[in-house]
Amino acid sequence: MRLPKVVDDLILSFERLPGVGRKTAQRLAFYLLRVPQRDLDVFSGSLKDLKEKTRLCEICHNVSEKDVCSVCDDDSRDHSCICVVEGFQDVLAFEKSGGYRGVYHVLHGSISPLNNVGPEELYIDDLIKRIDSDVVSEVVFATNTSLEGEATAMYISDRMRQMSSSNEKLGSVKITRIGRGLPTGVELEYADDDTLNRAFIGRTAM
Amino acid sequence: MRLPKVVDDLILSFERLPGVGRKTAQRLAFYLLRVPQRDLDVFSGSLKDLKEKTRLCEICHNVSEKDVCSVCDDDSRDHSCICVVEGFQDVLAFEKSGGYRGVYHVLHGSISPLNNVGPEELYIDDLIKRIDSDVVSEVVFATNTSLEGEATAMYISDRMRQMSSSNEKLGSVKITRIGRGLPTGVELEYADDDTLNRAFIGRTAM
Repeated sequence: MRLPKVVDDLILSFERLPGVGRKTAQRLAFYLLRVPQRDLDVFSGSLKDLKEKTRLCEICHNVSEKDVCSVCDDDSRDHSCICVVEGFQDVLAFEKSGGYRGVYHVLHGSISPLNNVGPEELYIDDLIKRIDSDVVSEVVFATNTSLEGEATAMYISDRMRQMSSSNEKLGSVKITRIGRGLPTGVELEYADDDTLNRAFIGRTAM
Repeated sequence: MRLPKVVDDLILSFERLPGVGRKTAQRLAFYLLRVPQRDLDVFSGSLKDLKEKTRLCEICHNVSEKDVCSVCDDDSRDHSCICVVEGFQDVLAFEKSGGYRGVYHVLHGSISPLNNVGPEELYIDDLIKRIDSDVVSEVVFATNTSLEGEATAMYISDRMRQMSSSNEKLGSVKITRIGRGLPTGVELEYADDDTLNRAFIGRTAM
């Protein structure tokens, strides 16, 4: 049986998305056949305009409607503290948690030799320049706790320390890594060894 | 932080899809920010034209480009055997398996009182009319083996049997249910009780 071309095309488009296999793509396409045309128009319009109506914030490289994103443009935030993250979704996660009042720097990935991603593919130079030209007192590395995320944080902090010998301003910036330990709500007996070790090392006075 | 409106809209559209939660919707939208505009245009175009460029086959109610689908329009297929399925994806599954050479009838769901789906919501009357007016020798019920699928097959076959007392043509039609038993490649010890019982009942001479 030949499916109508437009259905086949839609299945292919869904299949290209990360984590979506052939069966899921079919299920989604068939589902959309029953959805009102208005909803399809909205969906279709958002996809078409996605890149045209967005850009990267020229300061932190987060996704934005204007040249400068709503966080970098907010005077009430602490612009002296930069939280370095891998992707847009990490910014969203921090903003949802509501506790952070500083600004961000989005690297757009992590150093991963296996995937051909070197330091020059990420917005690392921009981060160094930004720290050098702005009034920054602290850089918090909030890259993932994966091997790649750790290596990326290590690489950038090493580079900052190397440069700080010839640059007094960089030398005065506090470099920190986001805290490690037990996540909230987890039972201690199910935590993995590395988490437990790091939680013990990272114990705090009470 | 406010996300650009177009990104927010896209996340909402993804979130409305079955099995897609907030986090997945965000991940997909952010992924698409990095995709070439050409791919977005194709995706967007398929969505917009999805319903305009497809219709339901007027014979079997499968999704089709023309008034009659490619299966119903194929003279090499056995039009005297109708396989009754719940949805488009079931037709695809049979076609992929390659063994079936008859035609289909898509009910567009199953009887499910809990979800407010009664017999009148499905293409059941059309099936009866089709059997009555066409040269049909066998109807194979291939609805799902869920409670709803079983009930739907039972309901339609009962109705056919009731009508067959006053309609000689309907009376001559063989009514079958798709075979039940062990799926290929499964280890017997892991099969559930009902499957094992049905496999035993459905044993064949060898």
